Formats: sequence, C-alpha cells, structure tokens
Amino acid sequence: MDSLFPPGSGVAPPEVLKSISGLEFMRRMLAGELPAPAIAVTLGFGAASVERGKVVFSGTPGANAYNPMGVIHGGYAATMLDSCMGCAVMTALEAGTGYTTLELKVSYVRALDLRSGELRATGRTLQVGRRAAFAEGEIRDASDRLIAHGTTTCLVFPL
Amino acid sequence: MDSLFPPGSGVAPPEVLKSISGLEFMRRMLAGELPAPAIAVTLGFGAASVERGKVVFSGTPGANAYNPMGVIHGGYAATMLDSCMGCAVMTALEAGTGYTTLELKVSYVRALDLRSGELRATGRTLQVGRRAAFAEGEIRDASDRLIAHGTTTCLVFPL
Amino acid sequence: MDSLFPPGSGVAPPEVLKSISGLEFMRRMLAGELPAPAIAVTLGFGAASVERGKVVFSGTPGANAYNPMGVIHGGYAATMLDSCMGCAVMTALEAGTGYTTLELKVSYVRALDLRSGELRATGRTLQVGRRAAFAEGEIRDASDRLIAHGTTTCLVFPL
Amino acid sequence: MDSLFPPGSGVAPPEVLKSISGLEFMRRMLAGELPAPAIAVTLGFGAASVERGKVVFSGTPGANAYNPMGVIHGGYAATMLDSCMGCAVMTALEAGTGYTTLELKVSYVRALDLRSGELRATGRTLQVGRRAAFAEGEIRDASDRLIAHGTTTCLVFPL
Repeated sequence: MDSLFPPGSGVAPPEVLKSISGLEFMRRMLAGELPAPAIAVTLGFGAASVERGKVVFSGTPGANAYNPMGVIHGGYAATMLDSCMGCAVMTALEAGTGYTTLELKVSYVRALDLRSGELRATGRTLQVGRRAAFAEGEIRDASDRLIAHGTTTCLVFPL
Repeated sequence: MDSLFPPGSGVAPPEVLKSISGLEFMRRMLAGELPAPAIAVTLGFGAASVERGKVVFSGTPGANAYNPMGVIHGGYAATMLDSCMGCAVMTALEAGTGYTTLELKVSYVRALDLRSGELRATGRTLQVGRRAAFAEGEIRDASDRLIAHGTTTCLVFPL
Repeated sequence: MDSLFPPGSGVAPPEVLKSISGLEFMRRMLAGELPAPAIAVTLGFGAASVERGKVVFSGTPGANAYNPMGVIHGGYAATMLDSCMGCAVMTALEAGTGYTTLELKVSYVRALDLRSGELRATGRTLQVGRRAAFAEGEIRDASDRLIAHGTTTCLVFPL
Repeated sequence: MDSLFPPGSGVAPPEVLKSISGLEFMRRMLAGELPAPAIAVTLGFGAASVERGKVVFSGTPGANAYNPMGVIHGGYAATMLDSCMGCAVMTALEAGTGYTTLELKVSYVRALDLRSGELRATGRTLQVGRRAAFAEGEIRDASDRLIAHGTTTCLVFPL
C-alpha cells in the first residue's frame, strides 16, 4: 500500500505515535523525519511551523481543487483548517495521549482561485483538557486577507 | 489551464451557469455533459443522483486522502458534505440565481480507512429563501452506518 | 438557594442522577417527580414527550425573550435546542453515565415573534458512544414550519 | 404589550432603527436612551462597552438560568454570545442597513455555576460585507478563564 501514498506522505509507525509527545511528533514531521499527511500532499500544502499550541500549514491551491463554478472548492479550506487546528491540539498532548476530531466548523469569508497565491493556515488551541480540546484557526492569503475561519472540538484519550 | 484539471473535470461555461436552473445544471453534470468538480475527481467521488432538494455523491476514499494516523483525513468527509449539501441547494435555484457557501459544520461520527468501501453522501435542503439557504447532509458507508453529519448555510443572490 | 429557582424548577439530587438511567430521569422530570430546568421555566418551555433517543420540549416565547428589533432573541431557540438535544442524548445513557455539551450549532431559518404561538423542539440522537455522542434537533411552529435547526456534540463519561 | 417587557427593556422604534448607524444605536442602548434587550434583562446581563467592530456584554448568571444537573444551562452562554457577536456586526453597519443571525456555534470550555461570578462576553467582527458578515466571541469569568467561544454568520441587507 505504501506505494499508493503521494511522495513524502504516509502513515507514521504506531509505536512512534505512542512513544513521543505530540509536539515532538509535529517537529519530526516538519523536519521530514516522519511522513506528511497524504491528503496535504494531494492538495498541495504542508506544515510550515510548529510550536506548543500553534501550528501553521502553508500551500497554494491548484486546478485539482477547483469546483465547476471556477473557484477553489470549499473542501480545500476545510482540509487545511482541520489539519492546522488538529495538529495544534496534538502539540499540547503528552506521549501516550491521542486525539480525534469530533467536529469542525468553517466560515468562508472570501472565495479563492488560482490567483490567490500562497495561503497560510494557522491553528491555535483554545483549551486542552484531559478528555476534550478546543481550537480555532484561520486562513490568510499572501496579502494577509482573511479567507476562512474555523473552530474544532477534539476528543482526547489515552492511547 | 484546462489541461491541469483532472480528467472529466473543469469549469462550466459562465453563460451556461447563468442560463439554466440549478437542477438542470446538476442533471447535465450527472449525465457527463458538464464537467465534474475537479476536487471530487482528485479525491475519488462523483455525483450519483440528483433531484430537486436532494443530491447524492458516492465514492471510495483512497490512500491519497490519508492522514499520518492511519485513517482517512477529516477533510475528505468535509469535502463530500460541502459538495452534496451545496449542490442540493443549487437544485432549488432558478436560472439566474447563484449561491455560495457561507459556512459548513461537520460532525465526525466514525473513522474511515481503506476498508470502509464506497461511501454515499446525501445532501438535503432544509429551507431555500431569496437571500439564504440551509441544508443538511450525511455520509453513510456500504453497511449504512452513519460516518459523518453536516449542516451548511449558503448565500443566495442574483447572477 | 432553593427559593431562588422558578416554581417547579431546581437541581436534581446528585444521588438520584447517579442511580437511574437517563431515560428514567427524563420520565420522572416529565411526570413532575424531578425538578424542571430553571432556565426552561424562566423562558416558558418544558418537556413534552420522552422516549429513548428522542425528546420533545414545547413552549411559547414571550415578551421576556425579545430583542430590541422586535423579534424573539436567537438565544431562545438556542436554549430550546440545547435542551432537547442534550436530553435526547441523556435518554440513551445508562445509570452511572453522565454527559456534558461540548458544542452547539444553531441555524436560524425563520424569525419568531409573539404571534408565532407554541413551538415544538425535537431532539434526536445521531449516535451515542462510550466517550462522545451526537444529536440533531429542530424547532417547528404551530403551522409545522421549520424555525431553527441544531446539532450538538456531547462528551460522555462515567459519573 | 410594553408592560410585559422586563424593566428597562423593550423594542426600539423602527424609525430610529432605520435612521441611525448600528454604532450609534449601540451607543444609545449603552447610554440607556434606547431599550435593552428583554432577554438580557431576563437573564441578568447587559451591554458594557461598544466600539466599531467590538461589543462587550457583562452579567452574572443566577438561579433562574440553572439546569437540573446543578450548573448554568448552556443556553445562557449561547444567548450572551449571540448578543455580543450580533451587536458587534451591528456596529459596522451604516444607517439603513439591517442584519439577522443565520447561524451560531458555541463551544463550551468550562461549566458555570453560581460561584462563577461576573462574566464578560466580547464579540468581534471577522469581516463585514454587503450581504454577509462574520463574527467571533468569547466569554471569560472574573479570573479571565475562557468559559465559552462562539462564531456566527449574519445576513446583511438594506432596511
């Protein structure tokens, strides 16, 4: 199956996932020591910076993310926001703790097209508890205009 | 730019978009007479049935939609739900009327992986007015289990 | 403090909360054997029917729920939906299991005023697991028109 | 009907609503020259500060906003957030322009009870356009801890 993943992407070894903190996991992904998310490579974005409670992804949407109305499909921003917000939550989790997204909301402020250029999606934790975590995120274009805003709720659990 | 779109996908001619109803637009897309959404082809799903107020997309997520934790990324379900709910709204709009998604919420009920098989995403309008429209949607797997649930708000406007 | 609660409302004894199922709890509230929610009495609504996975509240918004624009404040529908959806989740929980609302989304389909008459808010579970639960809800007026739609995510935990 | 409104609350004269900007409207409400929202008086909160794009409400939830589990009902935070976010949008609208809430999402970070003390709910606009507006909001307690977070989408239209 490995050969089906886009170049540079894949699944992290489960024993690594269990043994290091979420912040360490994200640092290794940023350094290219752990695989990138396959869907991020498919859609043309990747991790740009990582710190505790804050993760930035950047990327430029292409023709493969269009909808028939001639703009970038809303799924692109939803995927970027789910990535940066979920990863922000992950950076706040100790080794042996996992998370999963329970829900995601995206507000679409401005339409995107091929001229939008590079986007930056920044996710920040609002609060991380033992059983649940909350984060918010935003996407801005190269001119720093707000493109989309998101919030998410994650379940936190022992691995 | 056309050559950058995945096979079968692309942008509909604006004069067609303006001159036919949303239901007719969706019927022509289903019949292959209008291009499919590029992102849907990229992610492996497409329109399966269309009627006034209800649109179904079906597809099977693949390795190119994975996240590093070994499951399908939440962006996949978000993209399917945005598609089926937005298109359901579109089927209720007369010629000369356009729409855009203002916001999208997705609830993630069950995780997906490569064994999940074919998914069906059904969008239904809750209410379509002159200036705003609401829809809900759900994704079910081949065993009819609920995978994800969504709601959306769209802006409606004259083209 | 008891005297500060509106008539018929109050806090259930914690030992009762722990010892009976959520369905039994809701049945006793409907029968008047356990106190109604104070905020429901304040805003003029109450439980109307209860079954496993589905709870209906009914009520008529009054002048004390207005906003300065001359319509019922959006907080009224949000409160009704939070009540019926959270209680629907509760009816699916066994004794010794608690829940709390993690997030709530409300779509406002039609405005309400003093002529809207009696409203019915119906909450239904989408899925109830060991650690999380999802529900949706809707409010309809006396003419069965859709007024508002909601979804919620709850955390489920042992008491 | 006027006598049914809680003291200090009521409906603003429609001709005033049409003739002044949203910022002026909120300033007059803060100064007590226009009626407060009835539901805010019912639930014990009111406008605390107003500027273009940002509105703060403050208040202390009481026994009349409880639920049977012994904490403040989620409808309280939803109502405060709907108020501060909607009013923030209003402060960005010129005379002759109205708005209505299309949808509201609330994330519940910490439970509230009678010891929570005074809450501050701050709403800020994310973007205000000719046909739609977006805002976010947060509620903090007297110790500045995050209690709840919200986002909203509003429809904007000529009056």
